[in-house]
Amino acid sequence: MMTVTTGAYAPVVSAGGPRVHRVSDSEANRRSIDAYVARVDARDWDGVDRLTHPDVVYDLPQTRETITGQEGLRAFNTAYPGDWHLMLAERYADDEAGVARLDWRVADGADGTAIVFFRFDDAGLITRITDWWPESYEPPPGREHLVQRY
Amino acid sequence: MMTVTTGAYAPVVSAGGPRVHRVSDSEANRRSIDAYVARVDARDWDGVDRLTHPDVVYDLPQTRETITGQEGLRAFNTAYPGDWHLMLAERYADDEAGVARLDWRVADGADGTAIVFFRFDDAGLITRITDWWPESYEPPPGREHLVQRY
Repeated sequence: MMTVTTGAYAPVVSAGGPRVHRVSDSEANRRSIDAYVARVDARDWDGVDRLTHPDVVYDLPQTRETITGQEGLRAFNTAYPGDWHLMLAERYADDEAGVARLDWRVADGADGTAIVFFRFDDAGLITRITDWWPESYEPPPGREHLVQRY
Repeated sequence: MMTVTTGAYAPVVSAGGPRVHRVSDSEANRRSIDAYVARVDARDWDGVDRLTHPDVVYDLPQTRETITGQEGLRAFNTAYPGDWHLMLAERYADDEAGVARLDWRVADGADGTAIVFFRFDDAGLITRITDWWPESYEPPPGREHLVQRY
């Protein structure tokens, strides 16, 4: 099990048991992204709250929807329909912000990609989550000779 | 003007003039992302070729379109309609891969977001570019009480 604390210190489990290593803020932020995805997928809303600022802003730019605060984020996530799951595909962060690409799937067989941007405060808490859910579409006509389809 | 070379060495312009500093692979990759966006926006296809591997793969997952090779990428970009421009909003990279969020706009007034993932080889050349172009849509009904619209 992975445990993530906020800020620049995070526990690392080694062969000899858990020890606390100094890690960079960027590394701590990468671990927070990993933990956020795992905690959301596990419906561990208390765990999500430990990673986020109380006034965290959740933003969905494609639908121009926003939520402010942990309580509202929990309500939105709890109400989200379907037996959905998230798998982390790749993620990057610096000492202030980062991004994750997720593969999502729902038990009914639907699946796709989500791209999630994060901002962190000085204590390592997530202050902003911006979710993008790109959808498939047919390419515009006229460029068939320039590409391969798969 | 920013100049970017491939690999772990990249010139840094300081007050005393250009000098070559050793930078990390992740920092070199971040600079390559910056340069790629600037070179594409400038239609500097030779500049793009200097940043990419000859067999670079360009992938558009939403339309399941792919292009292999610098020549095909140049042909696709040259044929792309409209007086479009790209502005880098944020970007992250580690020593193997990275991602950029771009604001794009077309002279006719259309605008939006593109999210571009990159992979790099050991020499710092871009080997894969994966473009996501998320579109706006109306939110599903039933969650109006859980969000604010903007």
